[in-house]
Amino acid sequence: MSVVVVGSVAFDSIKTPTGSIDETLGGSAVHFSLAASLFGPVRLVGVVGSDFPAEHRDLLSSRGIDLEGLETVEGGETFRWSGEYHRDMDQRDTLSVELNVFEDFEPKIPRSYRGGNFLFLGNGSPVTQASVLDQMDNAPLVVVDTMDLWIQTARSELESLLGRVDLLVLNEQEASLLSDEKNVVKAGRIIQKMGPRFVVIKQGQHGSLISHRGGEVSLPALPLAEVEDPTGAGDSFAGGMLGALSRASSSDLDSLKVSVAWGTVTASFCCQGFGVAGILSADRELLQERFEQYRKMIDLGTASIPQLAP
Amino acid sequence: MSVVVVGSVAFDSIKTPTGSIDETLGGSAVHFSLAASLFGPVRLVGVVGSDFPAEHRDLLSSRGIDLEGLETVEGGETFRWSGEYHRDMDQRDTLSVELNVFEDFEPKIPRSYRGGNFLFLGNGSPVTQASVLDQMDNAPLVVVDTMDLWIQTARSELESLLGRVDLLVLNEQEASLLSDEKNVVKAGRIIQKMGPRFVVIKQGQHGSLISHRGGEVSLPALPLAEVEDPTGAGDSFAGGMLGALSRASSSDLDSLKVSVAWGTVTASFCCQGFGVAGILSADRELLQERFEQYRKMIDLGTASIPQLAP
Repeated sequence: MSVVVVGSVAFDSIKTPTGSIDETLGGSAVHFSLAASLFGPVRLVGVVGSDFPAEHRDLLSSRGIDLEGLETVEGGETFRWSGEYHRDMDQRDTLSVELNVFEDFEPKIPRSYRGGNFLFLGNGSPVTQASVLDQMDNAPLVVVDTMDLWIQTARSELESLLGRVDLLVLNEQEASLLSDEKNVVKAGRIIQKMGPRFVVIKQGQHGSLISHRGGEVSLPALPLAEVEDPTGAGDSFAGGMLGALSRASSSDLDSLKVSVAWGTVTASFCCQGFGVAGILSADRELLQERFEQYRKMIDLGTASIPQLAP
Repeated sequence: MSVVVVGSVAFDSIKTPTGSIDETLGGSAVHFSLAASLFGPVRLVGVVGSDFPAEHRDLLSSRGIDLEGLETVEGGETFRWSGEYHRDMDQRDTLSVELNVFEDFEPKIPRSYRGGNFLFLGNGSPVTQASVLDQMDNAPLVVVDTMDLWIQTARSELESLLGRVDLLVLNEQEASLLSDEKNVVKAGRIIQKMGPRFVVIKQGQHGSLISHRGGEVSLPALPLAEVEDPTGAGDSFAGGMLGALSRASSSDLDSLKVSVAWGTVTASFCCQGFGVAGILSADRELLQERFEQYRKMIDLGTASIPQLAP
């Protein structure tokens, strides 16, 4: 089973306390695709300008990412973003945004992408996200990302989109804003009532929370002493999660839990290099190794558990 | 094996967004003892005034807590604390502190407590904590709690104490202050170099991190939709952790990991009632049930894990 992703393709300029990089390959669809491609085939839908170099296309293609859905606007310029992280890497300031060809992006889903694939709608206007859903013949699993901008400016469009999706992935602050609730468990339950079967709340270095019909599952992050650049970590997390789900061809709670663990491990690679360098440093073997390390870390075994009752 | 705890016994007045309570039984030694007593025998060292009622003693005794080490200062008044929690329950303001008999507390360890027990030094001056260590003949495991006040005002005394303890338990802000490092993984490593074999960093609703000689273990909290009153959660966590360790009569990493999980589950009860009501609502059967639920929550199994390599 393939994963189809619709999102941004960008040039990112990033500053962190340890370094900086200019106009490097980025964007939600790129980070997601590179992560998901570690698990299986990915089909990308996005838009770039004629300034988007062949080497970037070659890189994506070489990772098994289908670019039939990557539109090029002749004479247009690719989306540019720049941002700066501060000492604790938890907060970032956006320094500039040039939407360029992304501003009027109307995703066109190639016929070959439309049936039977898991779909990820990267952060974007809920109206655009809904237009993608309208074009799909059949997507067994629809996962959506969003951000504070859309919660604040397009809440009713977002809420009607949520009635059509299986899983919403968002961060803690966004969950609190969308639900008007500080407690993350309650926030997940409120958002679930808006439609999605699952809500996955990303908590950065504090892991993630899955809100499902029967309760909640909380999983830790992988402890990292060195974070080079967290840009794209959320999309890498989603890419790893959807990649693992598509490999399992399943979307029940047990599969989702294991897939969130895969997403967690995938995102840890993303944080360890600037731009896409972190995720490019991963291969299947390294990923599998780190997953085993993560599984072992949270495995409580059974032998050493003192029985208390009766 | 018993657990010996040295710490405060207090009357707490607590305000939260959902309610308030006046002069209820509290203090680090009380919260710790009630939690640890769910696992086995506890011996308490503390001080109260003559205003400390017999019903509180009876309650503690009825839970198997030995009060030979609870000193009463005739004519003195028991330590009083009052505080207020805000909407997200993560932050609290101390409204007033009356140290009373706790101000000149010089812990005297009864002879019967001195040998072969696991020791918990609740938050207090590192000089006082060291004086307790001096009185012990043999404590196979010494666990210490501290707070920002001592890090700021008695750093050198704290650092020399840390050379004599096995495990330091503290929260994220305190770890950052003590290590001058924002990254929690690095902070744990720096503190470990000050002496303790293990550093357990409490992250509240985000779980906890164990820093050990070979790396880190991160475990999530139990997701709670309703938090009535977090007062004493940190001490209940430590009490559950040490209770489980003493039951296992072991302090290797695997035992510690499982014990941190028990501490996490124990603390979740503490948060669900005002003062000590939360922990008093737990019994061994309920604790065991919730532990199984926690273990299942983070169990990734093996069946549904997609193998990626080679």
